[in-house]
Amino acid sequence: MRTLDNNSRYRHTGLFTDFYELAMAQAYFYENKAGEEAVFDYFYRKNPFGGGYVVFSGIGELLHSIRNFKYSEEDIAYLQTQGFRKEFLGFLKNFSFKGTIKAPAEGEIVFPSEPLLVVKGSILELQLIETLVLNILNFSSLISTKASRIRNVSGTRPFSDFGLRRAQGAGGVLASRAAIIGGANSTSNVLAGYQYELPVGGTMAHSWIQTFSSELEAFRTFARNYPDNAVLLVDTYDTLKSGVPNAITVARELGQKGHRLKAIRLDSGDLAYFSKKARKMLDDEGLQDVKIVVSNQLDEYVIRSLTLQKAPIDSFGIGTKLITGKETSALDGVYKLSVYNHHPRMKVSDNIEKTTLPGEKTTMRYLQSDGTFYADGVLLTDEKGTKEIAHPHFSHKRSDISKYTAEPLLKTVMKEGEQTGENPVAEESAAYLQQRLKQLPDEHKRIEFPHQYKVGISEGLEALRDKIFKNIKERRKL
Amino acid sequence: MRTLDNNSRYRHTGLFTDFYELAMAQAYFYENKAGEEAVFDYFYRKNPFGGGYVVFSGIGELLHSIRNFKYSEEDIAYLQTQGFRKEFLGFLKNFSFKGTIKAPAEGEIVFPSEPLLVVKGSILELQLIETLVLNILNFSSLISTKASRIRNVSGTRPFSDFGLRRAQGAGGVLASRAAIIGGANSTSNVLAGYQYELPVGGTMAHSWIQTFSSELEAFRTFARNYPDNAVLLVDTYDTLKSGVPNAITVARELGQKGHRLKAIRLDSGDLAYFSKKARKMLDDEGLQDVKIVVSNQLDEYVIRSLTLQKAPIDSFGIGTKLITGKETSALDGVYKLSVYNHHPRMKVSDNIEKTTLPGEKTTMRYLQSDGTFYADGVLLTDEKGTKEIAHPHFSHKRSDISKYTAEPLLKTVMKEGEQTGENPVAEESAAYLQQRLKQLPDEHKRIEFPHQYKVGISEGLEALRDKIFKNIKERRKL
Repeated sequence: MRTLDNNSRYRHTGLFTDFYELAMAQAYFYENKAGEEAVFDYFYRKNPFGGGYVVFSGIGELLHSIRNFKYSEEDIAYLQTQGFRKEFLGFLKNFSFKGTIKAPAEGEIVFPSEPLLVVKGSILELQLIETLVLNILNFSSLISTKASRIRNVSGTRPFSDFGLRRAQGAGGVLASRAAIIGGANSTSNVLAGYQYELPVGGTMAHSWIQTFSSELEAFRTFARNYPDNAVLLVDTYDTLKSGVPNAITVARELGQKGHRLKAIRLDSGDLAYFSKKARKMLDDEGLQDVKIVVSNQLDEYVIRSLTLQKAPIDSFGIGTKLITGKETSALDGVYKLSVYNHHPRMKVSDNIEKTTLPGEKTTMRYLQSDGTFYADGVLLTDEKGTKEIAHPHFSHKRSDISKYTAEPLLKTVMKEGEQTGENPVAEESAAYLQQRLKQLPDEHKRIEFPHQYKVGISEGLEALRDKIFKNIKERRKL
Repeated sequence: MRTLDNNSRYRHTGLFTDFYELAMAQAYFYENKAGEEAVFDYFYRKNPFGGGYVVFSGIGELLHSIRNFKYSEEDIAYLQTQGFRKEFLGFLKNFSFKGTIKAPAEGEIVFPSEPLLVVKGSILELQLIETLVLNILNFSSLISTKASRIRNVSGTRPFSDFGLRRAQGAGGVLASRAAIIGGANSTSNVLAGYQYELPVGGTMAHSWIQTFSSELEAFRTFARNYPDNAVLLVDTYDTLKSGVPNAITVARELGQKGHRLKAIRLDSGDLAYFSKKARKMLDDEGLQDVKIVVSNQLDEYVIRSLTLQKAPIDSFGIGTKLITGKETSALDGVYKLSVYNHHPRMKVSDNIEKTTLPGEKTTMRYLQSDGTFYADGVLLTDEKGTKEIAHPHFSHKRSDISKYTAEPLLKTVMKEGEQTGENPVAEESAAYLQQRLKQLPDEHKRIEFPHQYKVGISEGLEALRDKIFKNIKERRKL
């Protein structure tokens, strides 16, 4: 391992890229194409988790990283060892991103196939930041979406992100923030709390209890240190015969001193069974105000099941399945060229769903009179509007959207390299999401087999796409 | 978002921890228990991906992070806002880790339930580093294991990690290194290449081709820039009617100038079908030396299928499913107290598999006379040896290991806070793994339904565990 002091590790993000971006950039440079204007779209193809939507997040982190997309002397020296040439390296040394970026608000609800980021600038700079765009937005939005699904089944009961230990390395820090945007109430991740000003919290580990000669003494000592804030973990030896009775003893002792035991935590066994038994034991002692927190391999499906069983649980601690996305480990977002040198560009693929949409575009949301979402449309930026939208693949599926209120989804967040506003604050993005969820009809929020939300292309875009497709087919061998 | 310049972002790792570690640490501090000696074990419970083993990796990154586990003035100021008290914060300000760590060699093949890390030090310091230990080792070992499975089915054909864009945030940098250890030949991740001295490489994107008025011109221009190293992506318009014929034209032109087209890349459609067609077209033109690279949602199952279909593929580019682990998104490693103040400790759980093994332990590997692995044993460090080992849960399942050669698996990698050697080098760890895989019988390497490798506990450990278990049961309410 190269010995780096930690200071230099993430100072510049210029090397946070795929090798081929640099290989193409060098060739653009020597072919005198580096400065040609281009547009790329960021969009995804398939909703994760079998759900009905994605929560867009991570734009602040991305803009921060793009502002720092630079190359240090050491970076340049390294690239030289990889065969990159002198004049190109000289160019990289002075590189900074000067493009313009449009994006939805953080916390926005978004759907497949519609442009989320529209990035305009020189072909070279747009190519270099591709990996960063995809890495940050794909992951952050994935975790915000997962958290949102958990929020949808948890109702008003709080849940906390406990996942850092099972997160995929340092990405866990960004993930904890993403979880808060999606609906988590707090995180155990102290670095994320510091870096992004998130609410942090935690309880105790089994090891605490095991360092004492008895569980009761362990509980008592912890409660003495945190008299108004103790959550006692009750499953180290025997939940119902030892853990809960000892917690009751400590709750009584705290009560006598004017304090209150905050909660007990169950971390193993059948959580429905144990929570009911524990609730009854607490209630029988007049400890109705002591809450029950549960953890252990939770996700939206387990929480729904516990709720259906009327398990008397007050809050949830969620680890692996929230912080990694578990069954969907990545959002399939892509970043595709749509304009080059003022000409619309399109990729035709042997996989139909991999065909892209040409031209500089924007995304509109159509609202019903009560403010609920009806459909989204992808339009060319030079179109005034569209009367109807067509399904991107099945052109006979069309919707008249002329009666609906059109709302532009994308705003300029960076203009010629300058960020236009402050980075979004996690709790504001979280609040925005909750507001938008109220506008999304329930059938799109189901955690399984949701109704598919309409996303269509405008009349102008359809005509452009069909024209280019015909050209490509006619020329065939290009 | 707190405005931090990137310099300070990962300078210190002290905040890379769960809130409860600090809450417990503070209570240990005020209870005068902070300096008590303890031992923690890191182990995992279940092989990921339905496989037969795990490849241990990430120890260098962990030791690096533990050496930097310190708190800056800003960190301390932040913790004060979170309610931590003055004397404790004064203690943290001067904190550095002084414990002793034993671990397997990086690239070692390891199995469930056996201690991988044995960490000895003060209870407070061992508690604080828990999250870091779990985060780094769980993730790095997961990805090395996935890569090893892909290597097992790819045989001698190279494969490259293309995953950074779908990786879970910044964790992708560590993951690319882990992939190399498991058997990837190179990575597209430039930052990982720089940081860990890994072989990097890449090809071209569809966008390159789309910036030219024809595919042929795009290929020709790229080949002019990289005359001995070009991999041409042939599926932008029509693989067999446009991409491959154009690549053939360019290959001939390169040949006339004394160069060679390195390869073509297929990224969509049926890879078995297209690779056979493309191979024939290339061969018919005498271009037997032009290789075929494929990508698009590959993993060990797809590669096995392509191999069974005799698809003439020379190498693979693998993204999402390698870099995130996909179906297993986290290794379930845990870090559990086994000794406190010279007394063995054990956790009994309502989930039998969550019960831990008490005492300071070590892991031994038993080898057959030809050097192949027979079984692993978990022994108490003060045992001289054991004649037989018992299954950790079913004590009637026992194996006589007295005839086998015993090899200790764990070596001291940090002694009282000082690292004892250099960080492992990725390519050496990768080579060590390949050597060890030769010693592992084939039935444990199957990618599905492998034979379960024997891991047992020694006579001394079994006796200690049963004694403690009996005590706990007799006392019940603790």
